[in-house]
This record gives sequence, C-alpha cells and structure tokens, in this order.
Amino acid sequence: MHTDLVTALDIGGTKIAGALVDGSGTLLVRAQRPTPARESGERVMEAVGEVLAELTASPLWGRASAVGIGSAGPVDASAGTVSPVNVPGWRDFPLVERVSRAAGGLPVELVGDGVAMTAAEHWLGAARGYDNALCMVVSTGVGGGLVLGGTLRPGPSGNAGHIGHISVDLDGDPCPCGSRGCVERIASGPNIARRALEGGWRPGQDGDASAAAVAVAARAGDAVAVASFERAAQALAAGIAATATLVEIDIAVIGGGVAGAGDVLFAPLRSALRRYATLSFVQQLTVTPAVMGNDAGLVGAAAAAFAARAGADGAVPVQV
Amino acid sequence: MHTDLVTALDIGGTKIAGALVDGSGTLLVRAQRPTPARESGERVMEAVGEVLAELTASPLWGRASAVGIGSAGPVDASAGTVSPVNVPGWRDFPLVERVSRAAGGLPVELVGDGVAMTAAEHWLGAARGYDNALCMVVSTGVGGGLVLGGTLRPGPSGNAGHIGHISVDLDGDPCPCGSRGCVERIASGPNIARRALEGGWRPGQDGDASAAAVAVAARAGDAVAVASFERAAQALAAGIAATATLVEIDIAVIGGGVAGAGDVLFAPLRSALRRYATLSFVQQLTVTPAVMGNDAGLVGAAAAAFAARAGADGAVPVQV
Repeated sequence: MHTDLVTALDIGGTKIAGALVDGSGTLLVRAQRPTPARESGERVMEAVGEVLAELTASPLWGRASAVGIGSAGPVDASAGTVSPVNVPGWRDFPLVERVSRAAGGLPVELVGDGVAMTAAEHWLGAARGYDNALCMVVSTGVGGGLVLGGTLRPGPSGNAGHIGHISVDLDGDPCPCGSRGCVERIASGPNIARRALEGGWRPGQDGDASAAAVAVAARAGDAVAVASFERAAQALAAGIAATATLVEIDIAVIGGGVAGAGDVLFAPLRSALRRYATLSFVQQLTVTPAVMGNDAGLVGAAAAAFAARAGADGAVPVQV
Repeated sequence: MHTDLVTALDIGGTKIAGALVDGSGTLLVRAQRPTPARESGERVMEAVGEVLAELTASPLWGRASAVGIGSAGPVDASAGTVSPVNVPGWRDFPLVERVSRAAGGLPVELVGDGVAMTAAEHWLGAARGYDNALCMVVSTGVGGGLVLGGTLRPGPSGNAGHIGHISVDLDGDPCPCGSRGCVERIASGPNIARRALEGGWRPGQDGDASAAAVAVAARAGDAVAVASFERAAQALAAGIAATATLVEIDIAVIGGGVAGAGDVLFAPLRSALRRYATLSFVQQLTVTPAVMGNDAGLVGAAAAAFAARAGADGAVPVQV
C-alpha cells in the first residue's frame, strides 16, 4: 500500500476546507463546507465530519497516512484541543481525538492557522530557502508563525508566532484579547477601516467601508486613507522588528487581505521597519508578500502532517 | 591528556573576566582586568590578552579544550566579531580569531552577554529544567537570551533574545539605538532614576541618585519612586508577554542590579504581566529572580563552550 498522501484540514470561522495532498503539495481531492460558527460545537464537528466523509469516499483515501489540521486559534496542540475565538461552541474542544476517530484512527497533527500558513510559505512559497522566517496573515485578524533554524517552530501548544497579540503600544487602545495596543488592534483590516472612518474618510457610492476600499482611496491620494495604512504599517513594523530582535529572522512574509493593498501597505512598512529594526543583526531583514494564496492553510496543514510523520518514523524530516 | 575544562571569558564595558571552568560549572582559576573602554581597540585586546595569559600560566591550562566568550553586544557570531556599544574602539573587531590565537588555537564559541547569562541560568540556575525560557539582565542596559525546545537558542549572530531593544511604545521616547519606546528606554536602571528625578523625587544626604536609591525610597512608600518602578515593570511585562506570545516560554528569569529591588519590581511586574499576557497559552507564565549572580557571565560562556564542543564532537550535547 502506498501511503504517500496526507489529509489536510483548514478550519476557520467562515469555512472548513479539506484535501488529500501529495508530497509535492498538490491538492488532489478537495471538500469544503461553511462553518456553522454560531451553532453548537457538535454541529460544527458535523461539518468537519462531512468534509472528511467526502475525502474518505475518494479512491485515493487509502494512500493517506496522517491528518494535518490548521485551525483558527487559540489551539492547544499538547492537549489536542481548540478554542477558536470565532467559533464559540468550541471551547477546549477535543478536535484531534474526534478527527482521528472520523479518519479511521490516523495520527493527527494540530497547529494554529498562522503556523500552517507559515509551513506552506516555507515549503513552497515566499519563505522557501530561508532558515529563519516570520510569516503573517493580516486580515480580519493578525496571525503568524515562525521558522527557526530551518524548521517550523509551532511551540509546545502550536501557537508560536502569534504576532497579532503582542503589544507595541503599552498605553494604547484596549484589545478584545484583554491587553492593550496589540498589533492586531492597530493593523487589522477592520481597524484600518475604523481609523479611516474616524478620520473623516467616507466610502464611495457602493457603500464599501472595508480596508480594501480604504486602500483604493489611498492609492487615489486620499490623505486620511494613506494615514490609516501608514499607522497600520508602523504597528506591523514595530512587531516585525521586535520578532527579529528576539529570534533573528531573515525575512517577514505577509499575506491576507490587507497585504493585497500592495504598495499602499508595503512602502510605508519598509520605511517604518528601517526606523524600528535598528540593531546591526536585524538591519538586513526583508519584507515580502506571501505567494501561497487561499490554499496556504491546506498546504501548510499538509506540510505539518508530513513533518510530524517523518519525525515519528525516525526518518529524515521532509524539508518543511 | 584530560580535556575536561573550558576557558570562559566575560567581556563587558567595565571589566574583562576569565576563568577555567569544569563540567560542573565550578570556576577553578580566575583572572580579571578593568576594561580600558575609552582606549584603542588594541589596548582593549591587550587587557584580554593579560587575562588569558594568567589562565594559560595555570597548571590546569592543558586540560582546557575550548574557549567560550560572552561579550557585550552586538556580537556577530557568524563573522566572529564584536561591536560592543560601550567599547567604541571595537567595531567589527575580530575577537574570535584574536582569542583563538592567544589561546594556542583552541576553538572559540562567541555569544552575546545576554545569551551567556541565559546559558548559565538554564544550566545551573533559575531556568534549570525549563525547556522554554527567557532570561534577562536589567541593569544599566537590558539584555536577554532564549532557551527554546530545551536548548540555548543564540540565533545565527549570537544575539537572539535581545529584549531590551524591542519597542513596546511605538510613539515613545527616542532610544539611543535609533528606535523608540524600547524596553530598555523605559526599564533600565538609569531610566528608572531619570523618571523618578523628573517626577520630583530627590536623593538623600548621600546624594545617591541611582535606581537602587529609588528602590529604597519606593520601599519607604515614596509615591514617585513607586510609580517609576511600576512604569519599568509595565514595560518589562509588555516585553515579556510579547516574547511569550511569539515563542511560548514557560518562565522569565530576571537578573541584574534592577532585579535586586525585589518586590518593588516583581510585585508590579507580576500584576502587569496578567494584563499583557492574556492568551490561553501564555497565562501560566512564571517570573522569577535570577540566582547565578556575578558569575553568570563566566558560567554561561563556559556552558556555551561545552555545548559547542559536544556538538562538534558529534557527541550528545551536555544539558545546557
């Protein structure tokens, strides 16, 4: 029997995606359901079960030897549980045990969604070939993950690299996490839009008041829109510089909807990074957009599963 | 020939200390010189040479198989050079090559002083038995180092864990490093004293305007002195919480003169940490004083040398 595939699950507040993935990162079979995020935990698990059922029905299923899960956080990889902020029905939900049971007893590797995205960018994306990298998603929230010394570093609980909730403004606005002045509180899409609206920016006739609309205005020269992106860039720069100063990274990769703003974000970000990343050993730090797109979660979950499988076999881990 | 010892060098802006150290961390032979910090780089190297000459004159010298150096930073372990802020005569100074030559060609391991202190606390001190730890020195400056996954993580350049220069106040006061609102700019001893003086605190008849004197006043109930330590504690808490959120540490160990303030620092620090370390995977974080004292630099430099030697031999690394 060939066991050259893994099963990947990408679990977020909006959708639950699954795939059978081969050793080159190709998604061979896909399945997807909307996340019934406001319903009971069992109902959410039913949706996961439906995704898995589609995958197990594939003639390729027999070649899958492990399951990788990238989940909205926080996760607890040591306990095998998840408590996604946007899925209130899951609190310390035993996702690893439930998925393993639904997958016929296959071993399951659980990481946070930021760590999964990082695994994908390091395996096949913008961080490929870098031994020390921070990868981030800047979207409704801000998440991330770390590659240190050439390997993914999920941390004991699977949450390492959670840059969205480090404080870069210790007296700043309260964050829903309970802290103040977190990177996410300043740089997430909703906060870019909120700040623009507070500064007097108004959406066009289509009524679109999202960060993407603020980005369009910024590109057209609207000073308030530009300033809101500059403030987000400043917070991201302080957070990225802090990470580099703490763990010595060579590259920061940024994906997610807000990164889609392009130079509106990246130009002030690179400028601000020169002001915050001042020590000799962090001055060479590069910032670059992510390249893995919407499949990063699935590819990264697969990468985590391949790496865990290789480690468990005592074999040389695949380059993840 | 026994080769069960290493040579340790602890190089700071005030003194250059050396020792022959055995596998239990005992300092068998010591030597020390003041650092001629304002003189030429060659004159500083002469002082290092005098320390080494005393050690090589010992009958135990023949048992030393490697040299470990903990140096004021920044250091560049990959290039073997150091550029200590407080020793202007050394800029990209080739310390590894010069020490190796003076030590008869022994292999040399270079790390920053914060990393050396961390190696000591993890080997024999307050971080012993912890797989994931941040150790810090809060003194004239603020430095640190990381243990991740059970092993010292100096980073490629030997500077990882440099928590003193992460910004926790992105709009804050300019820091000599070029950034703003760095932990050191708020929490170092000189800044604790400066803030107290600016707030109206005045030294006693002895004229002592140091952070230690502010700590005495705080213990006696002086509100301005208490507030200055609380502000330092807040910055340290934000920095420690950021580190825990990024790399998942179980313990933060704090040494250096400012830590000598005891509860004046640690009580508000633990309180502030609860406000900044809010995510589930960082809430259990412990903060504790360092225990290795003035010899931490030498013991840690020895630990780094033992670890490097074990790695180079292909042997099982000593538990460092």
